[in-house]
Amino acid sequence: MATPSYEERAAEKRKQQLALIPPEWRLDPIPSVESAPNALEFIRKSLTSKELALTEETDITVLLRKLSSGALSSFELTKAYCKRAALAHQLTVCCTEIFFQEALAVAKEMDEHLVKTGQTLGPLHGLPVSIKDLFSVKGQDTSIGWVGLTGRPAPADKSVAKTLRRLGAVLYVKTNIPQSMMMSDSYNHVFGQCVHPLNRNLISGGSSGGESSLVAARGSPIGIGTDIGGSIRIPATLTGIYGLSPTPGRHPYERGNPGQDIVRSVAGPMSCSLASIEGYMEALPAARPWEVDPQTAPIPWRSDLASLRAKRLKIGFLIDDGMVKVQPPIARAMRETVEALRAAGHEVIEWDASSHAHAYQLWEKAILSDGGAGCRRMIELTGEPLIEGMLVGKEKDLLTTLEIYQLNADKYHFETSYLERWMSSGIDALIMPSTPWVGYKPWTWVKSNAYVGYTSIWNLLGYASLAVPVTTVSREKDQPDKEWLDHVPRNAGDKFNKEQYDIELVDGMPVGVQVVGGRFGDEVCIKVAKAIEQATRRSDSARASF
Amino acid sequence: MATPSYEERAAEKRKQQLALIPPEWRLDPIPSVESAPNALEFIRKSLTSKELALTEETDITVLLRKLSSGALSSFELTKAYCKRAALAHQLTVCCTEIFFQEALAVAKEMDEHLVKTGQTLGPLHGLPVSIKDLFSVKGQDTSIGWVGLTGRPAPADKSVAKTLRRLGAVLYVKTNIPQSMMMSDSYNHVFGQCVHPLNRNLISGGSSGGESSLVAARGSPIGIGTDIGGSIRIPATLTGIYGLSPTPGRHPYERGNPGQDIVRSVAGPMSCSLASIEGYMEALPAARPWEVDPQTAPIPWRSDLASLRAKRLKIGFLIDDGMVKVQPPIARAMRETVEALRAAGHEVIEWDASSHAHAYQLWEKAILSDGGAGCRRMIELTGEPLIEGMLVGKEKDLLTTLEIYQLNADKYHFETSYLERWMSSGIDALIMPSTPWVGYKPWTWVKSNAYVGYTSIWNLLGYASLAVPVTTVSREKDQPDKEWLDHVPRNAGDKFNKEQYDIELVDGMPVGVQVVGGRFGDEVCIKVAKAIEQATRRSDSARASF
Repeated sequence: MATPSYEERAAEKRKQQLALIPPEWRLDPIPSVESAPNALEFIRKSLTSKELALTEETDITVLLRKLSSGALSSFELTKAYCKRAALAHQLTVCCTEIFFQEALAVAKEMDEHLVKTGQTLGPLHGLPVSIKDLFSVKGQDTSIGWVGLTGRPAPADKSVAKTLRRLGAVLYVKTNIPQSMMMSDSYNHVFGQCVHPLNRNLISGGSSGGESSLVAARGSPIGIGTDIGGSIRIPATLTGIYGLSPTPGRHPYERGNPGQDIVRSVAGPMSCSLASIEGYMEALPAARPWEVDPQTAPIPWRSDLASLRAKRLKIGFLIDDGMVKVQPPIARAMRETVEALRAAGHEVIEWDASSHAHAYQLWEKAILSDGGAGCRRMIELTGEPLIEGMLVGKEKDLLTTLEIYQLNADKYHFETSYLERWMSSGIDALIMPSTPWVGYKPWTWVKSNAYVGYTSIWNLLGYASLAVPVTTVSREKDQPDKEWLDHVPRNAGDKFNKEQYDIELVDGMPVGVQVVGGRFGDEVCIKVAKAIEQATRRSDSARASF
Repeated sequence: MATPSYEERAAEKRKQQLALIPPEWRLDPIPSVESAPNALEFIRKSLTSKELALTEETDITVLLRKLSSGALSSFELTKAYCKRAALAHQLTVCCTEIFFQEALAVAKEMDEHLVKTGQTLGPLHGLPVSIKDLFSVKGQDTSIGWVGLTGRPAPADKSVAKTLRRLGAVLYVKTNIPQSMMMSDSYNHVFGQCVHPLNRNLISGGSSGGESSLVAARGSPIGIGTDIGGSIRIPATLTGIYGLSPTPGRHPYERGNPGQDIVRSVAGPMSCSLASIEGYMEALPAARPWEVDPQTAPIPWRSDLASLRAKRLKIGFLIDDGMVKVQPPIARAMRETVEALRAAGHEVIEWDASSHAHAYQLWEKAILSDGGAGCRRMIELTGEPLIEGMLVGKEKDLLTTLEIYQLNADKYHFETSYLERWMSSGIDALIMPSTPWVGYKPWTWVKSNAYVGYTSIWNLLGYASLAVPVTTVSREKDQPDKEWLDHVPRNAGDKFNKEQYDIELVDGMPVGVQVVGGRFGDEVCIKVAKAIEQATRRSDSARASF
């Protein structure tokens, strides 16, 4: 018998995946993009009013109050989310592993425990939580976009799933990612192309693009992504949700295959609701994740630092990092946010980004430093091809050990000098773009020169940063202006980004900003996001305009 | 004019160093080892009764109460410590940079500030604190044992000195280290051989051996060393003092030249008094070191975890790690400690150390991974020779980047499985030896195969660990017993360690144990050390028997 090709193995895996969706939730046929470009609208029409009511509440603290009092059963809520996730997946390809049956069994046990004892099983008692494919869940594959890793169910939960279960969460799906996780477009040969739930012609970003798509479709109240250069914040920004890239050590993480340790990837929450991000981070220390993950520190959530009292904040801002100029809707979102914060009485000062190009060099060197060896190992498993244009090292990028050690020193020097500047400036946080583009079709990003410098600098520095949705693209307000038209591209990435701006393509799509809270400034990110909400007179429910 | 040789440059540096000791504090001649083997005794006889009273108090919390109330002037205290350090240095070569004048000027300002405002300038207001040569102090060299780095005064304080000054400490000396800092014997071509203050025939350990020697001579109430494989705990154990190797991220540190980042070196306090270690760690967060050092985390000192209430502790122990068998006094110290803890009602269980050999392999691979490139750079500056036998890589040890990345993964796997075992065992801490030997003459350690596996595993894992003095070598109790005599050496290091045990050489020397508190178990280390003190019916003042 011939060894199956990678395409055959992938097709088999997708067949198994489909079989895990109950027949009554299957779309047959799945509507075409042309007939249903907006998955969210389609899903809303496909649910019962009860299912809709259960899954439209985006604030997990509201859900948790009802779950812990018994007013809402975990089984009922989980079932509604399973169905909505199943619909979302069929329309956007946002999921990898699907395990509804296990989830419903867990939810039932939770309900019974609460009835029997009157006690919850943790601060997230009974709440469905989705997680990125990277995290190992007992009995499920951890294929992270590689055909060669399918069909290898994890023998046990690893630290993220363990932590979530300790909190009382109900796991039900894992979410899609790009091959190698080094793209802002979530495509791989196993599961295919994940797309945007508000416009299926566009992508939902990456590498936590399955998570952003599922969450934005309201197929999950909160999901856990990972970020080493923007992989939470970029997809969150594109889909109009919140996404926190925490300081390393604040959220458990799972290191997988051998790789660089110069820039640490982090895990963090993504949700339509800021209150959910805060509620989740506040609950997290109760699980004592540092007892499970050797790289998590015992730092409590300091609610006082996240609380927006009548205090004047000092906020730095930058609109252009000098490398790739942001497209007009992002510049407008930034200007409006700065103006609103100033009008609300906060001090907002311009921030010098002239050192950011150096940071990007250091970050890129680290990321590419294995010369692509990690990916080659995965390719050798089945012969599946590498996707061109990803942020993956080529042989010329392979560093020597002494170059790595020099890079450690250069990074430390940069960290130290940036910290000194940050502290002496007296700012509470920075606001800036997450990414210079607002929407791409699939397979565009890999041709774009893959610039992620607006986000990656904070991974290099280990600073907490949060994607915050602030507006949507407007055909009226976001026409290319003189400044944009006159802009002379500085480099190939800048040129590509300028050429790609097409208001017809992205009209109505979400636009956000990034709040950077500094080292261990996770709470400050929340505070400043609250200030932005308040200043722009939006509330969570007002925000959820899509 | 010919370029001076490294010997000439070293001689010039030592001449400058001597000139910084006021003539009235100079020993002329410096007594020979034969005439004054015990430096501590000699120093005590050389001080006025007032100087003696000021410098024999080892508990900094007592000194700080007096300093903050104005009952004791910083100038007076600092001057007494400067004199005592000057005497200690002349007898043991424990110092590198000497800056008494600057210190006395700072102390005077502190006193004046207190008088004028009634306010202290920090929790360590006016306290003299010594620091290892590695830490940069404005205007002083940071030669870390290399001739080629002399004559290059630091343009500014770095994070450790900055933090100490924020706490109100008075810096007055930096302390001696071995070339490259990778020895348990503090010798270098610049300053020469540091020796033990209780027996100048012996060494004070390394690499924080100048610090251990100075502190044990009471030339400093508390000093800051560094530890990447035992460099605080080994010299502390040899000299009968306390030394804490904190969890990475709890104490600021300064990275210097390019090097590996797989095992992180840490800085921590060394003192004759356990209360001083605790008092210092408790004070430290007040300086907000995370605002200065990008690798320090905002974790407060959790006094409740350090407090020894009437609680039964569960403690693991190991006497032999299966690699190098400990010499008889250490085995006795361990047995006595275990018995005393059991008699005091604590649960003490044997700990399986069979994975420790693997940990040593990982640690050694990381430490040697640059193939000695760091040292070669230093040698090229002047042509001074490398000391043979140090823990420094040779060309054959140089790893490739992919080997480094595999090592990262292996380390993470080991960390995860060890943490799981630690947590599931339910122990509060481990007690074990710090080192398998109790005393060496200079230049013996470099022939010993340089085994530091009793301490280095905790650096690999990032676990807090504390050297605790418990007894002294006794000619009566520590004769080689049958078990020792029958022991068949397992390897060259074990053979060397067995052959070197000479009770005549080490009679009366301090013997200690190591308390391992786990990740972020810095407070637990203190608690268990208190339990040991209590169980062995010793108090700090009783301990200071030498």
